[in-house]
Amino acid sequence: METFEAIRTILSVRAYRDTPIPDETIHQIVEAGRLTASSQNGQPWRFIVVREPGTLRQLGALARSGPYIAQAPLAIAIATVESRFAVSDASRAIQSMMLAAWSQGVASNWVGFHGLDAAKPVLGIPTDVDLLAIVPFGYPATPVGKGAKKRLPLGEVAFSERYGQPYE
Amino acid sequence: METFEAIRTILSVRAYRDTPIPDETIHQIVEAGRLTASSQNGQPWRFIVVREPGTLRQLGALARSGPYIAQAPLAIAIATVESRFAVSDASRAIQSMMLAAWSQGVASNWVGFHGLDAAKPVLGIPTDVDLLAIVPFGYPATPVGKGAKKRLPLGEVAFSERYGQPYE
Repeated sequence: METFEAIRTILSVRAYRDTPIPDETIHQIVEAGRLTASSQNGQPWRFIVVREPGTLRQLGALARSGPYIAQAPLAIAIATVESRFAVSDASRAIQSMMLAAWSQGVASNWVGFHGLDAAKPVLGIPTDVDLLAIVPFGYPATPVGKGAKKRLPLGEVAFSERYGQPYE
Repeated sequence: METFEAIRTILSVRAYRDTPIPDETIHQIVEAGRLTASSQNGQPWRFIVVREPGTLRQLGALARSGPYIAQAPLAIAIATVESRFAVSDASRAIQSMMLAAWSQGVASNWVGFHGLDAAKPVLGIPTDVDLLAIVPFGYPATPVGKGAKKRLPLGEVAFSERYGQPYE
């Protein structure tokens, strides 16, 4: 799928078909993360690819905002090693992974920020490494729409030359 | 350009041709940012589209790590309104914009984090709004390569099932 088309149509999906994702597709998603640019090329991210149904069920039970991880055929946990740019850099990598997946028909949703610490022991994540997000991936359980999104109007978020001057 | 191909080949470019970027392309880049998903759909970003040569020169003079902004035909400043997810969300939007641009042959480079406060008055950014990054965009001044990147090997950043267990 063309890049802007992927950006325009991607939707957050929380229910997935019971269909495995081919290894090549998973590999491409992980590569999308690995190849992402980061501040001073710090690459402060670590990706944990989870496909074991038992582990996915445990993550779904522990991640407060993401019980649907339990039903996904794949989740990638994104951990960050110490860097003042870790959240920014890893967020870029997650964005790359979600777009690469969507481009192959694989949907996802960002589960993050709240209550993920409980999931760290399940994945063997050291205490000095942060767990930023767990992103479940899968083919959408129901047909997805055309990417209609609720967003602020262009003129409210985009300005021309100076803050507050609407960009048309 | 196909999404993964854009992710795989995108390079940071700091020297741009003296060629304007068509309005439609700029519009698509801004839309790529606006349409990006954010935590709880907070959309804590504001984009300032700068094309005035005088302003671009001022920004280049002020942004310590980005003097090359002065020679770009376009820069987008990314400001964030208060949100605990602002850095993460806006980083995702920037990633979308850079990929959408690259897919249309437009290169960019993230200028950020250090010493941007001095640029805020130039853009009329209120004191309670943060300036996260200024991203100059332009057609590369010299032919770009095939996207060879210096990145950690896959097995060092990607793990299977548990942290530290290399993903192949």
